[in-house]
Amino acid sequence: MRLRMGMIGGGEGSLIGPVHRIAARLDGLSELVCGAFSSDPSVSAATGVREGLDSSRIYGTWQEMIRRESALPENVRPHFISVVTPNHLHYGPAKMALEAGFHVVCDKPLCMSVAEAIDLYETVERSERLFCLTHNYTGYPMVKLAREMVLGGEIGSVRKVAVEYFQGWLSSPVETTGNRQAAWRSDPARAGIAGAMADIGTHAFNLAEYISGLEVVALSADLRSVVPGRVLDDDGNVLLLFSNGAGGTLLASQVATGEENNLSIRIYGEKGGLSWRQMEPNTLTVMWPDKPVQMFRTGTSFSSSGVAAPMHTRMPAGHPEGFIEAFANLYRNFALNIIALSEGSSHDIMADYPGIYEGVRGMKFLEAVVASGLNNSVRTEV
Amino acid sequence: MRLRMGMIGGGEGSLIGPVHRIAARLDGLSELVCGAFSSDPSVSAATGVREGLDSSRIYGTWQEMIRRESALPENVRPHFISVVTPNHLHYGPAKMALEAGFHVVCDKPLCMSVAEAIDLYETVERSERLFCLTHNYTGYPMVKLAREMVLGGEIGSVRKVAVEYFQGWLSSPVETTGNRQAAWRSDPARAGIAGAMADIGTHAFNLAEYISGLEVVALSADLRSVVPGRVLDDDGNVLLLFSNGAGGTLLASQVATGEENNLSIRIYGEKGGLSWRQMEPNTLTVMWPDKPVQMFRTGTSFSSSGVAAPMHTRMPAGHPEGFIEAFANLYRNFALNIIALSEGSSHDIMADYPGIYEGVRGMKFLEAVVASGLNNSVRTEV
Amino acid sequence: MRLRMGMIGGGEGSLIGPVHRIAARLDGLSELVCGAFSSDPSVSAATGVREGLDSSRIYGTWQEMIRRESALPENVRPHFISVVTPNHLHYGPAKMALEAGFHVVCDKPLCMSVAEAIDLYETVERSERLFCLTHNYTGYPMVKLAREMVLGGEIGSVRKVAVEYFQGWLSSPVETTGNRQAAWRSDPARAGIAGAMADIGTHAFNLAEYISGLEVVALSADLRSVVPGRVLDDDGNVLLLFSNGAGGTLLASQVATGEENNLSIRIYGEKGGLSWRQMEPNTLTVMWPDKPVQMFRTGTSFSSSGVAAPMHTRMPAGHPEGFIEAFANLYRNFALNIIALSEGSSHDIMADYPGIYEGVRGMKFLEAVVASGLNNSVRTEV
Amino acid sequence: MRLRMGMIGGGEGSLIGPVHRIAARLDGLSELVCGAFSSDPSVSAATGVREGLDSSRIYGTWQEMIRRESALPENVRPHFISVVTPNHLHYGPAKMALEAGFHVVCDKPLCMSVAEAIDLYETVERSERLFCLTHNYTGYPMVKLAREMVLGGEIGSVRKVAVEYFQGWLSSPVETTGNRQAAWRSDPARAGIAGAMADIGTHAFNLAEYISGLEVVALSADLRSVVPGRVLDDDGNVLLLFSNGAGGTLLASQVATGEENNLSIRIYGEKGGLSWRQMEPNTLTVMWPDKPVQMFRTGTSFSSSGVAAPMHTRMPAGHPEGFIEAFANLYRNFALNIIALSEGSSHDIMADYPGIYEGVRGMKFLEAVVASGLNNSVRTEV
Repeated sequence: MRLRMGMIGGGEGSLIGPVHRIAARLDGLSELVCGAFSSDPSVSAATGVREGLDSSRIYGTWQEMIRRESALPENVRPHFISVVTPNHLHYGPAKMALEAGFHVVCDKPLCMSVAEAIDLYETVERSERLFCLTHNYTGYPMVKLAREMVLGGEIGSVRKVAVEYFQGWLSSPVETTGNRQAAWRSDPARAGIAGAMADIGTHAFNLAEYISGLEVVALSADLRSVVPGRVLDDDGNVLLLFSNGAGGTLLASQVATGEENNLSIRIYGEKGGLSWRQMEPNTLTVMWPDKPVQMFRTGTSFSSSGVAAPMHTRMPAGHPEGFIEAFANLYRNFALNIIALSEGSSHDIMADYPGIYEGVRGMKFLEAVVASGLNNSVRTEV
Repeated sequence: MRLRMGMIGGGEGSLIGPVHRIAARLDGLSELVCGAFSSDPSVSAATGVREGLDSSRIYGTWQEMIRRESALPENVRPHFISVVTPNHLHYGPAKMALEAGFHVVCDKPLCMSVAEAIDLYETVERSERLFCLTHNYTGYPMVKLAREMVLGGEIGSVRKVAVEYFQGWLSSPVETTGNRQAAWRSDPARAGIAGAMADIGTHAFNLAEYISGLEVVALSADLRSVVPGRVLDDDGNVLLLFSNGAGGTLLASQVATGEENNLSIRIYGEKGGLSWRQMEPNTLTVMWPDKPVQMFRTGTSFSSSGVAAPMHTRMPAGHPEGFIEAFANLYRNFALNIIALSEGSSHDIMADYPGIYEGVRGMKFLEAVVASGLNNSVRTEV
Repeated sequence: MRLRMGMIGGGEGSLIGPVHRIAARLDGLSELVCGAFSSDPSVSAATGVREGLDSSRIYGTWQEMIRRESALPENVRPHFISVVTPNHLHYGPAKMALEAGFHVVCDKPLCMSVAEAIDLYETVERSERLFCLTHNYTGYPMVKLAREMVLGGEIGSVRKVAVEYFQGWLSSPVETTGNRQAAWRSDPARAGIAGAMADIGTHAFNLAEYISGLEVVALSADLRSVVPGRVLDDDGNVLLLFSNGAGGTLLASQVATGEENNLSIRIYGEKGGLSWRQMEPNTLTVMWPDKPVQMFRTGTSFSSSGVAAPMHTRMPAGHPEGFIEAFANLYRNFALNIIALSEGSSHDIMADYPGIYEGVRGMKFLEAVVASGLNNSVRTEV
Repeated sequence: MRLRMGMIGGGEGSLIGPVHRIAARLDGLSELVCGAFSSDPSVSAATGVREGLDSSRIYGTWQEMIRRESALPENVRPHFISVVTPNHLHYGPAKMALEAGFHVVCDKPLCMSVAEAIDLYETVERSERLFCLTHNYTGYPMVKLAREMVLGGEIGSVRKVAVEYFQGWLSSPVETTGNRQAAWRSDPARAGIAGAMADIGTHAFNLAEYISGLEVVALSADLRSVVPGRVLDDDGNVLLLFSNGAGGTLLASQVATGEENNLSIRIYGEKGGLSWRQMEPNTLTVMWPDKPVQMFRTGTSFSSSGVAAPMHTRMPAGHPEGFIEAFANLYRNFALNIIALSEGSSHDIMADYPGIYEGVRGMKFLEAVVASGLNNSVRTEV
């Protein structure tokens, strides 16, 4: 069974749109059938044509697309719609698509406020549609293994979490010199209440909660706009308090000059510690007080590698899997869940993906971070 | 324009078949339309159905597929056929497909002997069809950059090449306990005159010639079958002499216990040296006698990264690209060349891929290695 | 000229005492002549004998040693005295030694309070003696280079500092099971107001101020005692504000299970970023927005390695220098300064070492960290 | 007990002389008492004075030193003499010192020919003096652990050894522009029959035999002089055959442009494989077919780290130990053996160091390598 997919956003010049399309296509489970790729109809058309779409299914607005596609016969219209627009255009399209009966994939952060997030949460509940939020870093096999080890108690009760996400591409004011990716991310009207914290801090936050299995209950944040003239934060540091009393830190910066896309996490428990770095994603380092450091590797098939990692791996060990494969794991799991739902069969609970709940968590995190950051890092509940 | 692709081999249980399919699909330039996936018709059918093929285009033999598909109208039949069978089944299908007018993608090593290789070379010439040999490691962006730097003279005249390819998966006799991948690779009737040297040594050889821009003119080889009962080499070391007088070494083993897929190469010239490791493929390390070590990275866009690497990269720096993306680069370049040929336009010379000449080189290497290995490592011309 | 050295503390079972002795001896500039190695006279005697000291110069108390050694002829008595006792026994011996006319080397943290620190500061001023505080990590060649690059403006104005120091050896309550190193460090009477922050946090703090050339003016701290029954902090995270407005973080933990001695620092400026890890100390990684990552290495002699690093290196590149060599660099520089002072010559300003001012800074940091940590991470001035 | 040491060679401008002196001094077991540091008496005097020697014990020739020092009372004259001259001046001084009753430390390679080596071997036997050849890389804790694991059967029967030693400092003809280290190493009269193979190849050879516990019985070598005008080899590759039938490779180059001092070894057995790199010497990586990669680390104290490594470690884990500490381990073990001999007590068999036998092996290796290298890499017995 091959699912039909529609797309909102992702026209020429988009960074993440092509990633969604490749990720959806990778495992042969989904194919693009329609799109409203841009608010500029000519851009939308160009993208649609290049993607080989029938011109009748390329739209100038997302409203028109949802309206007309939902009127098509069930065996023609899309199974799901991917929303890959800037942040301010997540809520509207996602809500309308859900209400029109489509499953939805949506880029992160979920929306512009906790209020919108809760409304979307309730819309998902009401619609009984599936919802995937592309916190794509959870799709890496070694992240799956890390979570499995922590939840399985292998490192004991979690005591400390150190997550960080350092990029350097905004270390100069590129938003003023034609960089479209930078332009919308630094514009409160399109990005929302936060800059780096929204764009990458929410990824770090989601990763920390995903692997640890814990929730952050309070935080103290220091936000700053380092580049002159920038309104939203481009750098920030947060002290975290987890539900079980563990402490942690979340560091996010887009002005860490020279850094590429350096997301990393370390989690320490009573019995052991683990470390994962997105830029070398096929290794999970596990440290013990009383035996040698272990390096678990993507693609190894021995039993200590658990169940989840092998399930999210396509190649034998030593054949590096990267960002696109991890992203595709979300699409694959989402597709498998849609298929199971449509066939009335039960889905594999290991075929997980971030959903609407994670979206609400992210917005709560952002509102707390901004509140604390504006108030001398005062401790703030999440 | 989306190309139509047929496949020979790659049925259930194949390792490399799915890789070819994903690689072909990744960039949306090709789609599978027919296949003879196995000599067992039920296996072939199962794979074809799972891939969503029309049952009329799933075949029990490759001969039948080539015959019937070549009779289809031009706008229906495949543009190219991928041959992903064990070594002994490369020559026949590739030759018949070429003669039937199809472009061909073929797995490595090219065939079973230099004689077959030369015959295929002439067939390609005669047919005026395009031929791609999947020495996939040349598809990595940092390999492209390395070649560009060497050919551009940045490290000066090449003096020394050290290439090695270490795996450990054959360190026990798994071919006797049901591992199908191991079974055919250790069977002279299906693998040919060499084991590890054919399976991975030819990759290393191709990589050395590709990056250095030099050809090996003589060698001294030590081949051994370490695991009792194994007929073909599972471990070997070769001293290399290059056309410009440079020396080198090629080490290949499938009994390097615990190694995953550890292909690496270092090339030293008069002015500098460079090092690349397949298992962390997004870094190219360049060493100088008089300035700090440089680490070039996939996805960086500054001018010193050259032209070839950015062209073979899909994501910004720090978003790791892996084995599948590199493999897909061969398919993409091959597709772009077919399109250019079909449109009568000139193709981009940077959109390169290994071809029939590289296949002949590989077979000459193998015959020389085996000759030397059987004769006390005596120096042998290639 | 070879300097004579006395030692207080460092008897059998001490970790750091032997390090001081090796470090002093390494370059042949100092030799041990007397010691009060322990409050237990038999322990002191055993150590002294093993070190080959004349029995008349082995003492049961530090008071006696300072009194009697200061009465010896100038060409017999020590030039300097090293104080390597637990924290609560730094202030008294250091002050008495200074007042008796000896130069002093003292382990960190300087003492038990800011008040003691200021008193020692004034004692040093008054005595006109030299004082070295063994923040030994500043002795590494690549740390020297990092500082030289930052102060020389190579990475532009500093925007962000991320320093961390993770150990795991206190992840279980080893202080209750006979570990003497753990016992005094977790005892407020001997360690002072802080645990991990005093023991390793002050190292991280010193390193951050040393390399950046900036001072921390305010902080928000989260301190915790993770292991049940432990009174002092064994884990903590601090948000930093630097004098130039830059932000930063200092993470220090001795319950990061499985970590060895993982001190690292990253500093980002307008133009570039740099990263150094103590556990692989011979590499300084420098990142740029517009050119490849550079790895500077201990022992390289080309001009871009600056002046300070080569001066603190003993071997050519590729011959790893470690913890002991870095520690010895403090002793060497201290000795060279004593010799210059005694000869009335000017000393080389590159032969630097941490002194009494750094000791005061460390105590101010500790008092601010504890104040903030006890008060919900409220922002606190340093 | 502190041993008295004399030194032959190691005057101003020497690279290795100071290393020997620091290594001897590090653990406080030896002190320099006399020396003939150079054939130029003024150079010898300058070094001796700087080392604080009594002028009566600084000599202009090694013959004079041995003669006069051996006439001194037993409690004054040196216990041992270190010979740290260029290769052609090992045999004479070492032989005379042994015959005069001194224990001897000698730099590598042992001498200029197998004949000399055997003569020295017999001299050692006859004299009943101890002899240490400074193949210093065997002093690293992780090398000790590797050997212990291999000899203990942990990786099973050895199948493959890959050792290499790459430097780049001779990639231009620095011997013609005043580099004294390069000048004698490239001069057959002072270096002997081989260049890079003698200088660093013998280290690699010794390391391979030390860790594997096997001996090389035959080899095929390719030697070359890459830099125009150079007489001796500056680059070479050797195929190895070990006594148990295992194969191997030894690659040695001093024209691997940009390389520092890159010695590494990998050994694969039936059950596992291990990898060690001198430039990051505190990690031993052990690979298994059926469980995660392990990283053993210097300074860890759990039982799987064996006995030998902790015995040769001075600091807790995470405090890097380097080249000097490893070198000092040879001096320490040598001193402990002298002390045991002088006290008539038995020495600890774990306190091992390379001796005269290893010297003979090295010379046999060199003669075989040169013979094969001059004869088209023909297989040659060792």
